[in-house]
Formats: sequence, structure tokens, C-alpha cells
Amino acid sequence: MKAFSILSVLAVLLSTPSLVVAQDTSGAASQVPASTFSYVELNKVGDPAQVLEVKTGTRMPLQAGEVRVSVLATPIHPATLLQIAGKYGVDPVLPSTPGNEGVGRVIEASPEVTHLKAGQLVLLAGGSTWSEELVAPAASFIPLPDLGGPSSEVIEQLSMTVVNPLTALLMLNSFTDLKEGDWVVQSAANSAVGSYVIQLAKQRGIKTINVVRREGLADELKALGADAVLIDGPDLAEQIAAAAGNAPVSLAIDAVGGDTFTRLVNSLGYGGTVVAYGALSGKAGSLYTPITIFNDIRVRGFWLSKWFEISTMEQKQAALGEIIPLVASGAIKASVDSRFSISEIKAAVSRAAQGGRNGKVLIVPNKS
Amino acid sequence: MKAFSILSVLAVLLSTPSLVVAQDTSGAASQVPASTFSYVELNKVGDPAQVLEVKTGTRMPLQAGEVRVSVLATPIHPATLLQIAGKYGVDPVLPSTPGNEGVGRVIEASPEVTHLKAGQLVLLAGGSTWSEELVAPAASFIPLPDLGGPSSEVIEQLSMTVVNPLTALLMLNSFTDLKEGDWVVQSAANSAVGSYVIQLAKQRGIKTINVVRREGLADELKALGADAVLIDGPDLAEQIAAAAGNAPVSLAIDAVGGDTFTRLVNSLGYGGTVVAYGALSGKAGSLYTPITIFNDIRVRGFWLSKWFEISTMEQKQAALGEIIPLVASGAIKASVDSRFSISEIKAAVSRAAQGGRNGKVLIVPNKS
Repeated sequence: MKAFSILSVLAVLLSTPSLVVAQDTSGAASQVPASTFSYVELNKVGDPAQVLEVKTGTRMPLQAGEVRVSVLATPIHPATLLQIAGKYGVDPVLPSTPGNEGVGRVIEASPEVTHLKAGQLVLLAGGSTWSEELVAPAASFIPLPDLGGPSSEVIEQLSMTVVNPLTALLMLNSFTDLKEGDWVVQSAANSAVGSYVIQLAKQRGIKTINVVRREGLADELKALGADAVLIDGPDLAEQIAAAAGNAPVSLAIDAVGGDTFTRLVNSLGYGGTVVAYGALSGKAGSLYTPITIFNDIRVRGFWLSKWFEISTMEQKQAALGEIIPLVASGAIKASVDSRFSISEIKAAVSRAAQGGRNGKVLIVPNKS
Repeated sequence: MKAFSILSVLAVLLSTPSLVVAQDTSGAASQVPASTFSYVELNKVGDPAQVLEVKTGTRMPLQAGEVRVSVLATPIHPATLLQIAGKYGVDPVLPSTPGNEGVGRVIEASPEVTHLKAGQLVLLAGGSTWSEELVAPAASFIPLPDLGGPSSEVIEQLSMTVVNPLTALLMLNSFTDLKEGDWVVQSAANSAVGSYVIQLAKQRGIKTINVVRREGLADELKALGADAVLIDGPDLAEQIAAAAGNAPVSLAIDAVGGDTFTRLVNSLGYGGTVVAYGALSGKAGSLYTPITIFNDIRVRGFWLSKWFEISTMEQKQAALGEIIPLVASGAIKASVDSRFSISEIKAAVSRAAQGGRNGKVLIVPNKS
């Protein structure tokens, strides 16, 4: 995986007048900073619970243009664990501190920085977020709107603003022209992305068929807005047709691959698209190409890092401008399974790698 | 398969001023017509060599708006044989006369028809072409430009204008933005469509890597303009990379499916598209979806019948307006393996079903 960075969107957001910069109302900046902090370091690729180390950094004076931020919450994404294990696209640079996104509060800004002040809440957009503190150029931080002293719950939700919600939004928006009443099917529906797909679709009147691999998830997903929840199996295409009342399904979102991918392909109506964004099964699917010829089924993939690379400023502004208010307001949210400090990183990544979790694992450095 | 019809393009072509209508210079229309003619009839789905029957029709007076055409040449396409066997999309209507396209000469036109006269050469656009004669509304025939008494070779080439050349053209045009010097790979490169892909690509400076399943075809395909000819096998992706000098391949055109499809997927550069238009292997391919995520590989299908249904008049005009002059002028052409009369239909379809042919099998009703 390429290091995830949303640096390039900063300028866009800074120029958005509706994003009122939060003022320092907490007095946090007046605290005397400690002279050391903990962070996670990766020195070799391998099992995350084995190879990640907790290190102690010493606070150094800021360079011109830099900002020091206290990390409040940062999630453990499965893709990051795959990258640490050397199983995801491009291998990580070594040594490095993992972590893709999060929320922090500015501790200190160098005099050259005029738009960020101590106390300002920011999204962490420059990577290396699994740390108690970050020092980086000001462009690595996206100022959040004034949320009036947000609760820890809102801060946790904001720490997961970009990777999963934006993936869900872009997969719904980019491949088919979905209208109110249209049907979408997705696998791994109980994943973080899956739950955002359900919530975003529900808001637009798009109906979702949600495929999972175990019993006991239907109530939770229906509470989020799921129209149907199905258990994966050889009869999945038939189950999907029944759930949709034989209406055509125009988009399938797949994070599983293998047989599940094949079943989703076979469940789509004429001209339907399957978008893959993960392959949790680790297996290849089977594709009988006449279905692409006679039913015009289309297969695509989605990778957020690449999207950030190739999309225009306007596309980024539109997508982030749509997602941030939805997360900040609580209109869409993810479950949090558990919280760990930096020193508990091995337990944290072990938990994140377990099946049967009930939401995201967060690193909350100041958890007490 | 839906009955192939290019009726809807007639109005477009009629309005094209550059298509000067050929005049009757042969005197053919003055011949006294025979009172009966032979045609092929399909009464049940099955092995074409078993189920096709030769029938004798009696010439009936024309109804208002009808035209009587003597069929000069009409090809046997593999897709038609699959349809007769009940193995291609939608089953044929029964009873029916197969045949998708061809060239004929007008024998007689009803008084209401002003743009077609005896002697005019026409493309057969209404289907049911495996017959010595056709009677159909005038809109079923597309008048050809005045070719000054074309040779039988030109007439034979024109009888194959639409199905294969247009498929090749549209697959090259519709899925990727190919520029001079770009690389395209195709399987079944020695098929009729494959040979048109080579010729059309060569005209534009697009380089082709041509995959076949047996030795002995390289000279013939290189004479058409092929840049490389490879034998399919487990190392196909490596062979393709070597042939392209590791330049990215942006489009793969596949008529084989199965392992060949999978190898073509694995041979593409970032953002490349595989377009399937056949599945000669009869097998499903394997698709490991991370290649769609990280390499943005896209899978599509192409079906000409559907294209005629959904494309705009402007798209049809552009495509046929590009192809007809290329075929008529001999700039692109297909090999003809053999010629059969209507009464020899069983031998003709048996030959068309054989491997190792050297071109298309044609029905040439007046072959003597």
C-alpha cells in the first residue's frame, strides 16, 4: 500500500468558507508539554502483533512551518495490518510509524503558521498517526469546523472520517447512476465500510441487500437501515433475487472475493457493475465471460489511495465536503469495539485481527 | 441470440450523400425470374449439420413496399451456429431461416419503393439471409455505393461487412482511448474478428500482440500487420510482456475465456480493460479481484446485437460510415475458406464448425 495521505486536499478545505475554524476554548495549549511521548514503530514486515514496537520520542523544537499535534484518536484499519504484514499492494517504507488517519488537537504551531492555533481540532492527513504526538508541516492537518467542545464519541467518529466513509461514498457514487429505489448488494456488510454503505444508501432511498458470513447480525444492520440481510452460501444469487423481489440489482460492492464475488456477479441485472475493494477470502473468483457479453456485467475495483492520487481538487472537495459534516453531526457513524493506548499496541492489533468484533479498534493515546 | 438486425441504420445511411446509389448496369433485372428458389429452414434447435433443412420456396407477388433480392453471398458466423445449437444467449424463433448479413442484388421492387431499383447492390440487414432469394420491406436493405460492377471477391468481402469488422472496430473504439503506439493484445487472433482487429489497429499505428492456439499462423497474421504472434500457454503474461518490451498493454480482446481470459487479465498495465466477445473454451476464467483494486483492471463484454439496440443513430452512422468504405476498397478484408450453395448447407456448416479452417465459410447461392 502506498502511504495514505490526504495532504493534497488541505488547500481545498482551507478555501471552503463554510468550515469555520474551531477556536481554542479548552485551554489545552496552556498545559506544560511533557518532554517525551510514545509512538509505534515498524522495523520489519511481519505479523503486526510481533513486529510492532513501542518507542519513546523526545520532543524537539518545531521547525519553520511545522505544527505539533496531540493525537486524540486514530483507528486500526485492516488494510494497515495487511500492509504491515507485507500483504497489501506496496510494502511499507522502513522504519516507519503506521496509521492512516485520526483526530488531534494542536499543541503548538510555529510562528509561520497562521491558520492553526493551539487548541484547534484537526484531522490527521499526513500518515504516521499511531503516536501520542505528531510533528509535521501545517499542510498535514485539516482544521475541523467549530464543534463546540465535541464529546469523546464525536472525536472518535471523526478519527474515522476519511478511509471508510469516503470509500463507501465513492463506491456508491462513481460506478453506476443510482436512483432512489434502486437496489445495491454488498458483501462483508458488517464491516466498517459496509455499515457506512448502508447508512449512506438509506439516506438516499437506495435499497441495500447485505451479505454476511454468520448469523446474529440482522438486527444490528437493519437498525442502521439495511433492507435485507442474507447469509452467504451457494444459493446467494437466488436469495438476492428473492430479497429484491426480482427487481434488477445494479451495483454489487465486494470485499470478499472468491465464491462470493462469483455469486454477486451472477446476481446483477443487465448492465450491473461489481466493484471490489477487498478480498477477505484471499481467493480468486470464477468469471464466466458470457455474462459480461450478454448481460453487460462490468467488473471494477476501488482503491482510495489511488483515488486521492488521480482525482481532481473539485472531486476531493465535493467528497470530503459531503462526508465531514455527516460524520461530525452523527448522521453516519461506525461502532467502536475497543480502545487501546499506544503502549497496548500489540493487544490492539491482535484484537483488530480477530473475527467476531463488534466495530472498529481505536488507538486512544490519552485513554485512562 | 436476438435476431441480428441492422434495419434501424438504414435511414441513417440513406441520408448520407456520399453513398451514391449504384445503378443497374448489369442487366440482371431483365432476366426472367425462376418461379421457385431454395432456402434453409430451422425447425428445431440442435446440431446444425443435423437440424438444418433445405426447402423450396415459390415466388409470390410483392406486397406494397417490398423488395425482392437475389442473395449473392452470405457468411456462416460461429455465433449463428451456436444459436442454432441453442447455446448462445436467446434461442432462435422457430421455424426460421438463419443468417445475419450478406450482399444481394435487387431483382424487383414494388412501385412504392423509390430508392431501390432492379440491379442495385444492397447489404442484407433484415436477417434470414441463408436463402437464394429474400422478400422483405425496403428498409431491410442498405443500398451500397456504386462500385462499378464489383468483382465476386469484393462482393464476398462486402457480405461480411457488418458482423465482424464492426465488432472489431467497436471493441477498439469503445473501451479505452487508444493512441498511436499503444499496445493491444487479443486471443483467437486468427478468427475473422481477430484479423480485422489486426488490420484496423495497423491502420492507426496501434501495435497488436496476437495470441493463437496452434503453430503455423505467424506469417499469415504478420502479413496482415500483426506486431507479435504468440502461442497461448501458462506463461502467456510473460510472453506478452516480452513482446511489448514491458510497455503497458491497455486493452485485451478475448474470445476464448477460461485460462486465456485470466492470463490476459494478468498481462494488462494499470487501468487496462479486458473486453470479452466470445468464450470459445466454454470455460470460466479465474479472477483474483485485488488486480482490479490495485491495478484498476476493468472487465467488460461486447455484443454487437445489443450495441445496435442501444446505440444512437449518430453512433451507428459513424461506425458503418467508417467500415463500409474500408471493406469496399479492400483496405480491410477477411480470408474465405470455402464456398457452398444453399443445397450444400449441411456440408457448409460442418466445414464452418471445423478447427484449422483458413477463413470464413460463405454461402454463395449462385456458385456454379
